[in-house]
Amino acid sequence: MTETSALAIVQDYHRAWTSGDVDRAMTWVADDITCRAPGADLTGKEAYRDFIAGFAPALTGLTDIASFADGDRVALFYYPETAATSTAPAAECFTVREAKIVESVVIFDRLSFGPPADA
Amino acid sequence: MTETSALAIVQDYHRAWTSGDVDRAMTWVADDITCRAPGADLTGKEAYRDFIAGFAPALTGLTDIASFADGDRVALFYYPETAATSTAPAAECFTVREAKIVESVVIFDRLSFGPPADA
Repeated sequence: MTETSALAIVQDYHRAWTSGDVDRAMTWVADDITCRAPGADLTGKEAYRDFIAGFAPALTGLTDIASFADGDRVALFYYPETAATSTAPAAECFTVREAKIVESVVIFDRLSFGPPADA
Repeated sequence: MTETSALAIVQDYHRAWTSGDVDRAMTWVADDITCRAPGADLTGKEAYRDFIAGFAPALTGLTDIASFADGDRVALFYYPETAATSTAPAAECFTVREAKIVESVVIFDRLSFGPPADA
């Protein structure tokens, strides 16, 4: 596993789900993925897919901040754009093994992604 | 600016404030730092210092998750331990210029750092 390939895997995963193609994104996810998300620890691809599929439709755009790769680990920082906000950042730290994402730590501030004030 | 020195600067900054030495941490911070934190955009070293100094006393420990460096950018992922939680991750993405931290994006879930249930 080179750094480039771990980064390329995560980038394709990220492009896929953020453009609404959750199926393609999930081809990069291991069956036994573990994910720590705000307020939830997810185990297994089904639970992880439900989490991503639940958020993906709310996404109206995205602005990248930075991406990093170090061995089998990749980090993404970006602004997800939703009806509620386009200025609340999110970060993800992925671990890639055998060309699959096996672990993910997802960080965002749930309060910043609440319903828009004028909804 | 090599990658090592940007990372070394951020690591010393991080070790300093997380061990309670906010003064030493601030020697690495530019006067005109800008920081995006959950629910707050901070401008200038004074505002940033107040923010860090407000959180530092609540820290009872820390577990590292990962660190990354790419040119003048450095990312840290870690679990800050407080009375409320030791399992809610935080991420920071720093930009270093001329041996000072000039920009920071700080991400954590405010809801996870609320008061402990048994307080």
